[in-house]
Amino acid sequence: MGRWQPNARGRLEQAALELYGERGFESTTVAEIAERAGLTERTFFRHFADKREVLFGGAGQLDELLATAVAAAPDRATPIQAVTAGLDAVAAVLNDRRDFACRRQPIITANAELRERELIKLAAWAVVLADALHERGIDTSTATLVAEIGIAVFRIAFQRWVDDPTAADLRDLIRASLDELKALAADVPGDPGDIRP
Amino acid sequence: MGRWQPNARGRLEQAALELYGERGFESTTVAEIAERAGLTERTFFRHFADKREVLFGGAGQLDELLATAVAAAPDRATPIQAVTAGLDAVAAVLNDRRDFACRRQPIITANAELRERELIKLAAWAVVLADALHERGIDTSTATLVAEIGIAVFRIAFQRWVDDPTAADLRDLIRASLDELKALAADVPGDPGDIRP
Repeated sequence: MGRWQPNARGRLEQAALELYGERGFESTTVAEIAERAGLTERTFFRHFADKREVLFGGAGQLDELLATAVAAAPDRATPIQAVTAGLDAVAAVLNDRRDFACRRQPIITANAELRERELIKLAAWAVVLADALHERGIDTSTATLVAEIGIAVFRIAFQRWVDDPTAADLRDLIRASLDELKALAADVPGDPGDIRP
Repeated sequence: MGRWQPNARGRLEQAALELYGERGFESTTVAEIAERAGLTERTFFRHFADKREVLFGGAGQLDELLATAVAAAPDRATPIQAVTAGLDAVAAVLNDRRDFACRRQPIITANAELRERELIKLAAWAVVLADALHERGIDTSTATLVAEIGIAVFRIAFQRWVDDPTAADLRDLIRASLDELKALAADVPGDPGDIRP
Protein backbone atom coordinates (compact mmCIF):
# COMPACT_ATOMS: atom_id res chain seq x y z
CA MET A 1 0.00 0.00 0.00
CA GLY A 2 1.18 3.51 -0.77
CA ARG A 3 1.31 6.26 1.80
CA TRP A 4 -1.92 7.93 2.91
CA GLN A 5 -3.03 10.76 0.63
CA PRO A 6 -5.29 13.37 2.22
CA ASN A 7 -8.66 13.32 0.41
CA ALA A 8 -7.22 11.49 -2.59
CA ARG A 9 -10.66 10.46 -3.82
CA GLY A 10 -12.00 14.00 -3.76
CA ARG A 11 -8.93 15.37 -5.50
CA LEU A 12 -9.17 12.72 -8.21
CA GLU A 13 -12.86 13.51 -8.70
CA GLN A 14 -12.16 17.23 -9.03
CA ALA A 15 -9.29 16.63 -11.47
CA ALA A 16 -11.38 14.22 -13.57
CA LEU A 17 -14.35 16.61 -13.78
CA GLU A 18 -12.04 19.46 -14.81
CA LEU A 19 -10.37 17.41 -17.52
CA TYR A 20 -13.61 15.83 -18.82
CA GLY A 21 -15.04 19.35 -19.05
CA GLU A 22 -11.97 20.80 -20.79
CA ARG A 23 -11.02 17.98 -23.18
CA GLY A 24 -14.04 15.72 -23.22
CA PHE A 25 -14.40 12.36 -21.48
CA GLU A 26 -13.05 10.34 -24.43
CA SER A 27 -9.82 12.32 -24.75
CA THR A 28 -8.89 12.22 -21.06
CA THR A 29 -6.58 9.51 -19.72
CA VAL A 30 -6.26 8.17 -16.19
CA ALA A 31 -2.60 9.28 -16.24
CA GLU A 32 -3.69 12.86 -16.88
CA ILE A 33 -6.29 12.73 -14.09
CA ALA A 34 -3.71 11.43 -11.62
CA GLU A 35 -1.18 14.06 -12.70
CA ARG A 36 -3.68 16.91 -12.36
CA ALA A 37 -4.55 15.66 -8.87
CA GLY A 38 -0.87 15.39 -7.93
CA LEU A 39 -1.28 11.64 -7.34
CA THR A 40 -0.23 8.41 -9.04
CA GLU A 41 -2.24 6.20 -11.41
CA ARG A 42 -1.91 3.51 -8.78
CA THR A 43 -3.76 5.73 -6.31
CA PHE A 44 -6.45 6.38 -8.94
CA PHE A 45 -7.05 2.66 -9.33
CA ARG A 46 -7.28 2.22 -5.57
CA HIS A 47 -10.39 4.45 -5.69
CA PHE A 48 -11.93 3.82 -9.13
CA ALA A 49 -12.05 0.82 -11.47
CA ASP A 50 -11.79 3.10 -14.53
CA LYS A 51 -12.34 6.68 -15.62
CA ARG A 52 -16.07 6.11 -16.07
CA GLU A 53 -16.49 5.05 -12.47
CA VAL A 54 -15.57 8.56 -11.33
CA LEU A 55 -18.96 9.56 -12.78
CA PHE A 56 -20.98 6.50 -11.72
CA GLY A 57 -19.24 5.30 -8.56
CA GLY A 58 -22.05 6.13 -6.12
CA ALA A 59 -24.94 4.54 -8.07
CA GLY A 60 -24.88 1.23 -6.18
CA GLN A 61 -25.21 2.89 -2.77
CA LEU A 62 -28.15 4.94 -4.05
CA ASP A 63 -29.81 1.69 -5.20
CA GLU A 64 -29.78 0.49 -1.62
CA LEU A 65 -31.00 3.81 -0.26
CA LEU A 66 -33.95 3.71 -2.67
CA ALA A 67 -34.96 0.20 -1.65
CA THR A 68 -34.56 0.90 2.07
CA ALA A 69 -36.58 4.12 1.96
CA VAL A 70 -39.44 2.51 0.02
CA ALA A 71 -39.53 -0.38 2.49
CA ALA A 72 -39.53 2.07 5.42
CA ALA A 73 -42.48 4.14 4.14
CA PRO A 74 -45.52 3.93 6.45
CA ASP A 75 -47.97 1.09 5.75
CA ARG A 76 -50.65 3.57 4.75
CA ALA A 77 -48.45 5.17 2.06
CA THR A 78 -49.86 4.68 -1.44
CA PRO A 79 -47.52 3.32 -4.16
CA ILE A 80 -46.66 6.79 -5.46
CA GLN A 81 -46.04 8.02 -1.91
CA ALA A 82 -43.71 5.10 -1.23
CA VAL A 83 -41.82 5.91 -4.43
CA THR A 84 -41.63 9.55 -3.37
CA ALA A 85 -40.07 8.48 -0.07
CA GLY A 86 -37.42 6.55 -2.04
CA LEU A 87 -36.67 9.46 -4.37
CA ASP A 88 -36.51 11.87 -1.44
CA ALA A 89 -33.86 9.69 0.21
CA VAL A 90 -31.72 9.77 -2.94
CA ALA A 91 -32.32 13.50 -3.32
CA ALA A 92 -31.11 14.17 0.22
CA VAL A 93 -27.75 12.59 -0.67
CA LEU A 94 -27.53 14.42 -3.99
CA ASN A 95 -28.30 17.75 -2.29
CA ASP A 96 -24.94 17.40 -0.51
CA ARG A 97 -23.23 16.73 -3.85
CA ARG A 98 -24.82 19.54 -5.80
CA ASP A 99 -21.57 20.95 -7.17
CA PHE A 100 -20.44 17.51 -8.35
CA ALA A 101 -23.85 16.78 -9.92
CA CYS A 102 -23.94 20.09 -11.80
CA ARG A 103 -20.46 19.67 -13.21
CA ARG A 104 -21.07 16.01 -14.03
CA GLN A 105 -24.29 16.53 -16.01
CA PRO A 106 -22.89 18.36 -19.09
CA ILE A 107 -20.14 15.73 -19.32
CA ILE A 108 -22.76 12.97 -19.47
CA THR A 109 -24.86 14.91 -21.99
CA ALA A 110 -21.88 15.43 -24.30
CA ASN A 111 -20.98 11.74 -24.67
CA ALA A 112 -23.16 9.03 -26.22
CA GLU A 113 -21.57 6.18 -24.24
CA LEU A 114 -22.11 8.05 -20.95
CA ARG A 115 -25.71 8.91 -21.85
CA GLU A 116 -26.33 5.20 -22.43
CA ARG A 117 -24.68 4.32 -19.13
CA GLU A 118 -26.91 6.88 -17.40
CA LEU A 119 -30.02 5.35 -19.02
CA ILE A 120 -28.95 1.92 -17.81
CA LYS A 121 -28.36 3.24 -14.29
CA LEU A 122 -31.84 4.77 -14.17
CA ALA A 123 -33.41 1.61 -15.61
CA ALA A 124 -31.71 -0.33 -12.81
CA TRP A 125 -33.18 2.11 -10.27
CA ALA A 126 -36.62 1.50 -11.78
CA VAL A 127 -36.17 -2.24 -11.23
CA VAL A 128 -35.04 -1.66 -7.63
CA LEU A 129 -38.08 0.56 -7.04
CA ALA A 130 -40.47 -1.94 -8.61
CA ASP A 131 -39.06 -4.79 -6.51
CA ALA A 132 -39.33 -2.71 -3.34
CA LEU A 133 -42.96 -1.86 -4.16
CA HIS A 134 -43.73 -5.49 -4.90
CA GLU A 135 -42.36 -6.34 -1.44
CA ARG A 136 -45.02 -4.00 -0.07
CA GLY A 137 -47.69 -6.22 -1.63
CA ILE A 138 -48.28 -4.25 -4.83
CA ASP A 139 -48.77 -6.43 -7.91
CA THR A 140 -45.80 -6.58 -10.26
CA SER A 141 -47.41 -4.80 -13.17
CA THR A 142 -48.60 -1.80 -11.12
CA ALA A 143 -45.29 -1.74 -9.23
CA THR A 144 -43.44 -1.51 -12.55
CA LEU A 145 -45.70 1.28 -13.80
CA VAL A 146 -45.30 3.35 -10.64
CA ALA A 147 -41.54 2.74 -10.59
CA GLU A 148 -41.13 3.83 -14.23
CA ILE A 149 -43.25 6.92 -13.59
CA GLY A 150 -41.20 7.69 -10.50
CA ILE A 151 -37.94 7.49 -12.43
CA ALA A 152 -39.36 9.68 -15.22
CA VAL A 153 -40.31 12.29 -12.61
CA PHE A 154 -36.88 12.00 -11.01
CA ARG A 155 -35.06 12.55 -14.33
CA ILE A 156 -37.02 15.71 -15.04
CA ALA A 157 -36.64 17.04 -11.52
CA PHE A 158 -32.92 16.29 -11.58
CA GLN A 159 -32.44 18.09 -14.91
CA ARG A 160 -34.38 21.12 -13.62
CA TRP A 161 -32.29 21.14 -10.45
CA VAL A 162 -29.05 21.06 -12.43
CA ASP A 163 -30.29 23.77 -14.82
CA ASP A 164 -31.51 26.15 -12.12
CA PRO A 165 -28.77 27.55 -9.87
CA THR A 166 -31.39 28.98 -7.49
CA ALA A 167 -32.98 25.57 -6.83
CA ALA A 168 -31.34 24.37 -3.63
CA ASP A 169 -33.29 21.27 -2.60
CA LEU A 170 -33.83 18.54 -5.19
CA ARG A 171 -36.75 17.25 -3.09
CA ASP A 172 -38.68 20.46 -3.81
CA LEU A 173 -38.27 19.90 -7.54
CA ILE A 174 -39.36 16.26 -7.23
CA ARG A 175 -42.46 17.47 -5.42
CA ALA A 176 -43.12 20.12 -8.10
CA SER A 177 -42.70 17.55 -10.90
CA LEU A 178 -45.07 15.17 -9.10
CA ASP A 179 -47.66 17.94 -8.78
CA GLU A 180 -47.23 18.64 -12.48
CA LEU A 181 -47.67 14.94 -13.22
CA LYS A 182 -50.88 14.94 -11.20
CA ALA A 183 -52.25 17.91 -13.16
CA LEU A 184 -51.19 16.40 -16.50
CA ALA A 185 -52.62 12.99 -15.70
CA ALA A 186 -55.97 14.54 -14.81
CA ASP A 187 -56.31 15.24 -18.57
CA VAL A 188 -56.17 11.57 -19.50
CA PRO A 189 -59.10 10.96 -21.82
CA GLY A 190 -61.48 8.28 -20.60
CA ASP A 191 -62.51 7.56 -24.16
CA PRO A 192 -60.24 7.67 -27.24
CA GLY A 193 -63.00 9.58 -29.04
CA ASP A 194 -62.37 12.55 -26.74
CA ILE A 195 -59.37 13.64 -28.74
CA ARG A 196 -60.36 12.59 -32.25
CA PRO A 197 -60.60 15.63 -34.54
CA MET B 1 -28.21 -8.03 -57.90
CA GLY B 2 -29.27 -11.58 -57.18
CA ARG B 3 -32.51 -13.07 -58.42
CA TRP B 4 -35.74 -12.04 -56.75
CA GLN B 5 -36.60 -14.06 -53.64
CA PRO B 6 -40.28 -14.19 -52.67
CA ASN B 7 -40.72 -12.57 -49.23
CA ALA B 8 -37.02 -12.87 -48.45
CA ARG B 9 -37.24 -10.31 -45.64
CA GLY B 10 -40.09 -12.11 -43.89
CA ARG B 11 -38.37 -15.49 -44.22
CA LEU B 12 -35.14 -14.08 -42.79
CA GLU B 13 -37.06 -12.53 -39.89
CA GLN B 14 -38.80 -15.82 -39.11
CA ALA B 15 -35.54 -17.77 -39.32
CA ALA B 16 -33.73 -15.26 -37.10
CA LEU B 17 -36.47 -15.28 -34.44
CA GLU B 18 -36.46 -19.09 -34.40
CA LEU B 19 -32.70 -19.29 -34.02
CA TYR B 20 -32.44 -16.49 -31.44
CA GLY B 21 -35.14 -18.30 -29.45
CA GLU B 22 -33.46 -21.72 -29.74
CA ARG B 23 -29.77 -20.83 -29.36
CA GLY B 24 -29.81 -17.29 -28.00
CA PHE B 25 -29.02 -14.12 -29.90
CA GLU B 26 -25.28 -14.24 -29.14
CA SER B 27 -24.77 -17.75 -30.44
CA THR B 28 -26.59 -17.29 -33.74
CA THR B 29 -24.67 -16.31 -36.88
CA VAL B 30 -25.92 -14.57 -40.01
CA ALA B 31 -24.85 -17.66 -42.00
CA GLU B 32 -27.16 -19.82 -39.89
CA ILE B 33 -30.07 -17.41 -40.32
CA ALA B 34 -29.61 -17.37 -44.09
CA GLU B 35 -29.33 -21.15 -44.22
CA ARG B 36 -32.49 -21.67 -42.15
CA ALA B 37 -34.34 -19.26 -44.46
CA GLY B 38 -33.00 -21.06 -47.54
CA LEU B 39 -31.27 -17.88 -48.68
CA THR B 40 -27.72 -16.56 -48.94
CA GLU B 41 -25.82 -14.32 -46.53
CA ARG B 42 -25.69 -11.81 -49.37
CA THR B 43 -29.48 -11.68 -49.42
CA PHE B 44 -29.50 -11.22 -45.63
CA PHE B 45 -27.26 -8.17 -45.92
CA ARG B 46 -29.46 -6.70 -48.65
CA HIS B 47 -32.23 -6.51 -46.03
CA PHE B 48 -30.43 -6.01 -42.71
CA ALA B 49 -27.18 -4.29 -41.70
CA ASP B 50 -26.51 -6.95 -39.05
CA LYS B 51 -28.27 -9.58 -36.97
CA ARG B 52 -29.39 -6.99 -34.41
CA GLU B 53 -31.22 -4.99 -37.05
CA VAL B 54 -33.65 -7.88 -37.54
CA LEU B 55 -34.97 -6.94 -34.08
CA PHE B 56 -34.73 -3.15 -34.36
CA GLY B 57 -35.17 -2.47 -38.07
CA GLY B 58 -38.54 -0.73 -37.85
CA ALA B 59 -37.70 1.70 -35.03
CA GLY B 60 -36.85 4.63 -37.31
CA GLN B 61 -40.20 4.51 -39.14
CA LEU B 62 -42.02 4.42 -35.81
CA ASP B 63 -40.10 7.56 -34.76
CA GLU B 64 -41.61 9.38 -37.70
CA LEU B 65 -45.08 8.02 -37.05
CA LEU B 66 -44.89 9.25 -33.46
CA ALA B 67 -43.87 12.75 -34.47
CA THR B 68 -46.47 12.98 -37.23
CA ALA B 69 -49.33 11.78 -35.04
CA VAL B 70 -48.45 14.21 -32.23
CA ALA B 71 -48.30 17.08 -34.73
CA ALA B 72 -51.66 16.03 -36.22
CA ALA B 73 -53.51 15.95 -32.87
CA PRO B 74 -56.27 18.58 -32.69
CA ASP B 75 -55.25 22.00 -31.36
CA ARG B 76 -57.41 21.54 -28.29
CA ALA B 77 -55.63 18.28 -27.32
CA THR B 78 -53.80 18.59 -24.00
CA PRO B 79 -50.14 17.47 -23.85
CA ILE B 80 -51.04 14.01 -22.54
CA GLN B 81 -53.73 13.64 -25.19
CA ALA B 82 -51.27 14.57 -27.94
CA VAL B 83 -48.84 11.95 -26.60
CA THR B 84 -51.66 9.42 -26.53
CA ALA B 85 -52.35 10.13 -30.20
CA GLY B 86 -48.68 9.42 -30.95
CA LEU B 87 -48.61 6.19 -28.96
CA ASP B 88 -51.88 5.06 -30.58
CA ALA B 89 -50.34 5.49 -34.03
CA VAL B 90 -47.37 3.30 -33.07
CA ALA B 91 -49.70 0.78 -31.44
CA ALA B 92 -51.78 0.48 -34.61
CA VAL B 93 -48.66 -0.64 -36.50
CA LEU B 94 -47.57 -3.02 -33.74
CA ASN B 95 -51.05 -4.58 -33.62
CA ASP B 96 -50.36 -5.90 -37.13
CA ARG B 97 -47.02 -7.31 -35.97
CA ARG B 98 -48.26 -8.96 -32.80
CA ASP B 99 -46.71 -12.37 -33.51
CA PHE B 100 -43.32 -10.79 -34.28
CA ALA B 101 -43.51 -8.59 -31.16
CA CYS B 102 -44.39 -11.50 -28.87
CA ARG B 103 -41.58 -13.68 -30.17
CA ARG B 104 -39.11 -10.78 -30.14
CA GLN B 105 -39.70 -9.74 -26.51
CA PRO B 106 -38.21 -12.78 -24.70
CA ILE B 107 -35.16 -12.56 -26.96
CA ILE B 108 -34.61 -8.94 -25.92
CA THR B 109 -35.20 -9.77 -22.25
CA ALA B 110 -32.64 -12.60 -22.33
CA ASN B 111 -29.72 -10.49 -23.59
CA ALA B 112 -28.12 -7.54 -21.78
CA GLU B 113 -26.88 -5.86 -24.98
CA LEU B 114 -30.35 -6.06 -26.54
CA ARG B 115 -32.00 -4.75 -23.37
CA GLU B 116 -29.67 -1.76 -23.52
CA ARG B 117 -30.44 -1.22 -27.19
CA GLU B 118 -34.16 -1.31 -26.37
CA LEU B 119 -33.67 1.29 -23.63
CA ILE B 120 -31.83 3.54 -26.06
CA LYS B 121 -34.59 3.10 -28.66
CA LEU B 122 -37.25 4.12 -26.14
CA ALA B 123 -35.15 7.06 -24.92
CA ALA B 124 -34.93 8.21 -28.55
CA TRP B 125 -38.72 7.96 -28.82
CA ALA B 126 -39.03 10.12 -25.71
CA VAL B 127 -36.86 12.78 -27.37
CA VAL B 128 -38.98 12.61 -30.55
CA LEU B 129 -42.15 12.96 -28.48
CA ALA B 130 -40.75 15.88 -26.47
CA ASP B 131 -39.67 17.69 -29.64
CA ALA B 132 -43.08 17.16 -31.23
CA LEU B 133 -44.80 18.52 -28.11
CA HIS B 134 -42.46 21.50 -28.02
CA GLU B 135 -43.49 22.23 -31.63
CA ARG B 136 -47.04 22.47 -30.32
CA GLY B 137 -45.95 25.34 -28.09
CA ILE B 138 -45.43 23.38 -24.87
CA ASP B 139 -42.38 24.49 -22.90
CA THR B 140 -39.38 22.16 -23.11
CA SER B 141 -39.40 21.06 -19.50
CA THR B 142 -43.09 20.10 -19.46
CA ALA B 143 -42.76 18.52 -22.91
CA THR B 144 -39.93 16.34 -21.61
CA LEU B 145 -41.92 15.32 -18.53
CA VAL B 146 -45.00 14.36 -20.56
CA ALA B 147 -42.87 12.52 -23.12
CA GLU B 148 -41.05 10.50 -20.44
CA ILE B 149 -44.34 9.67 -18.76
CA GLY B 150 -45.79 8.65 -22.10
CA ILE B 151 -42.92 6.30 -22.81
CA ALA B 152 -43.14 4.80 -19.32
CA VAL B 153 -46.84 4.12 -19.93
CA PHE B 154 -46.06 2.65 -23.34
CA ARG B 155 -43.43 0.26 -21.92
CA ILE B 156 -45.83 -1.09 -19.35
CA ALA B 157 -48.72 -1.39 -21.80
CA PHE B 158 -46.46 -3.12 -24.31
CA GLN B 159 -45.21 -5.63 -21.72
CA ARG B 160 -48.80 -6.36 -20.63
CA TRP B 161 -49.84 -6.82 -24.26
CA VAL B 162 -47.00 -9.27 -24.90
CA ASP B 163 -47.73 -11.16 -21.67
CA ASP B 164 -51.49 -11.47 -22.22
CA PRO B 165 -52.46 -13.58 -25.23
CA THR B 166 -56.09 -12.44 -24.92
CA ALA B 167 -55.18 -8.74 -25.29
CA ALA B 168 -55.67 -7.99 -28.97
CA ASP B 169 -55.35 -4.23 -29.30
CA LEU B 170 -52.30 -2.55 -27.79
CA ARG B 171 -54.21 0.75 -27.80
CA ASP B 172 -56.65 -0.64 -25.21
CA LEU B 173 -53.73 -1.47 -22.92
CA ILE B 174 -52.23 1.98 -23.40
CA ARG B 175 -55.59 3.47 -22.43
CA ALA B 176 -55.82 1.19 -19.37
CA SER B 177 -52.28 2.11 -18.27
CA LEU B 178 -53.07 5.81 -18.70
CA ASP B 179 -56.19 5.42 -16.58
CA GLU B 180 -54.08 3.65 -13.97
CA LEU B 181 -51.55 6.49 -14.13
CA LYS B 182 -54.35 8.98 -13.55
CA ALA B 183 -55.57 7.09 -10.49
CA LEU B 184 -52.03 6.68 -9.12
CA ALA B 185 -51.13 10.33 -9.70
CA ALA B 186 -54.22 11.45 -7.82
CA ASP B 187 -52.44 10.15 -4.68
CA VAL B 188 -49.54 12.57 -5.04
CA PRO B 189 -49.09 14.15 -1.63
CA GLY B 190 -49.36 17.93 -1.71
CA ASP B 191 -47.12 18.14 1.34
CA PRO B 192 -44.19 15.84 2.18
CA GLY B 193 -45.52 15.66 5.73
CA ASP B 194 -48.50 13.67 4.45
CA ILE B 195 -46.48 10.49 4.29
CA ARG B 196 -44.08 10.95 7.19
CA PRO B 197 -44.59 8.23 9.80
